[in-house]
Amino acid sequence: MSDLEARLSQVEERLKITEDELELRNLMVRYGFAVDCGDVEAALACHSENATYTVSSPTAGRDDYDSADLRLNGHQAIADMLKSEMHQSLIPNCAHTVGPFTIELNGDKARATGYSRLYHRQEDDFNLMRLAVNEWHFLRSASGWLITDRESRLIGELEAKILMSRAAFYPAIYKKLIRNAR
Amino acid sequence: MSDLEARLSQVEERLKITEDELELRNLMVRYGFAVDCGDVEAALACHSENATYTVSSPTAGRDDYDSADLRLNGHQAIADMLKSEMHQSLIPNCAHTVGPFTIELNGDKARATGYSRLYHRQEDDFNLMRLAVNEWHFLRSASGWLITDRESRLIGELEAKILMSRAAFYPAIYKKLIRNAR
Amino acid sequence: MSDLEARLSQVEERLKITEDELELRNLMVRYGFAVDCGDVEAALACHSENATYTVSSPTAGRDDYDSADLRLNGHQAIADMLKSEMHQSLIPNCAHTVGPFTIELNGDKARATGYSRLYHRQEDDFNLMRLAVNEWHFLRSASGWLITDRESRLIGELEAKILMSRAAFYPAIYKKLIRNAR
Repeated sequence: MSDLEARLSQVEERLKITEDELELRNLMVRYGFAVDCGDVEAALACHSENATYTVSSPTAGRDDYDSADLRLNGHQAIADMLKSEMHQSLIPNCAHTVGPFTIELNGDKARATGYSRLYHRQEDDFNLMRLAVNEWHFLRSASGWLITDRESRLIGELEAKILMSRAAFYPAIYKKLIRNAR
Repeated sequence: MSDLEARLSQVEERLKITEDELELRNLMVRYGFAVDCGDVEAALACHSENATYTVSSPTAGRDDYDSADLRLNGHQAIADMLKSEMHQSLIPNCAHTVGPFTIELNGDKARATGYSRLYHRQEDDFNLMRLAVNEWHFLRSASGWLITDRESRLIGELEAKILMSRAAFYPAIYKKLIRNAR
Repeated sequence: MSDLEARLSQVEERLKITEDELELRNLMVRYGFAVDCGDVEAALACHSENATYTVSSPTAGRDDYDSADLRLNGHQAIADMLKSEMHQSLIPNCAHTVGPFTIELNGDKARATGYSRLYHRQEDDFNLMRLAVNEWHFLRSASGWLITDRESRLIGELEAKILMSRAAFYPAIYKKLIRNAR
């Protein structure tokens, strides 16, 4: 292999990592649009078939407050949640805005950590109902990146602190990838 | 054309798409700074000469509430709006924060969809006056990407739902571009 | 140098700029996680040893309001601030969410400008205590990009307007870099 070809191969590998990061950023935002416009099919298309979703205090900010975790497994459970009274009662007056994120790529897997806010419009007021930290895991599939696992923890909970701690340090594996590629 | 040159050409094309996406992300945020610091010239420099801007409920959250759409066409109309009492009365106590976004490139055109929030500082309080969904259209010019059209719809409006629906699915054309390039 | 090698060198240079921008975006968010989960070591690892940090109205939104600027110089001063009662009293019920940003690269230096919000959870309410504009300066080090200077100015202050003005126009030097590279 020529020197030029080796350099080109490195560039191709580095560029793929860059494209992956941008695709993941778009994916998380598309998921937010899907749940806010009530498009269950589009929301499921963001997830692998066996995707899991864990939410602490899912009804925070509402009258029927429940401190138990909500645990969803797979497309059917996610669809049921999106079609539930809990979610439907917010549409179309809600905005799930996600980010900012850190993103860490590791080949065909990736992890993102980021804040999320759930706003609810009531007349002319926009109320911040929920502020959480989320850890997202992804897998590359034939049709692009998919969410495989997501954990959402309310600010103030010990679990939220744990998720942030995992993302606060620049991950050694990503550093290595970048360094090798350069 | 050698195999190496073909690979290099593909890399150049993919890299351009990546650079375009980052430039568009910066452009939308620069526009926010321009309106918040009252720099009309900088705000116009983000727009094509014939740029259009449609805003529903432009005075939401204010006493002079008007539910009719505001429709602006071209630099002069945008400048007039930025110099108007409606906008000037908020400066310097406002923050137009945009995002998160999805971005879809298509050659020399692009579309972004994202949330936006308008905060107004009153004494020590920061009030969320407006929460909207925005669809931005862009055109590549000799001096970089420019906003050609923007539509801003308040959360809760049917039009907001339509804008989110358009962005919730990963656009086939972008997928195709990426796939061809790889 | 062959034509192919010249093109490849240009691609390598452009790709590095793209990777730098994404790394800087991740760095600023990691810093937010570090301060919210109380990881002083991780927060310092985001900064150069002589990093400076200037904050106007650091106690805005609190009872002990002080309008004087807080000026920190170096790791020890930043660590002291993070360990202070002022910061510790918020943990774990705070979220420092940063962005959106503009990012301008200039070789081994970079500047970002962006909004930031400090939320404080009190029971089931999430209060926006602080909304500011920040200018971040960075230097490339052997172990990656580091924050060298940060200035945070409350929305409404003249200094906030100045920071936004500097970022509102697309910087000529970055344009030139991009143009040369293409």
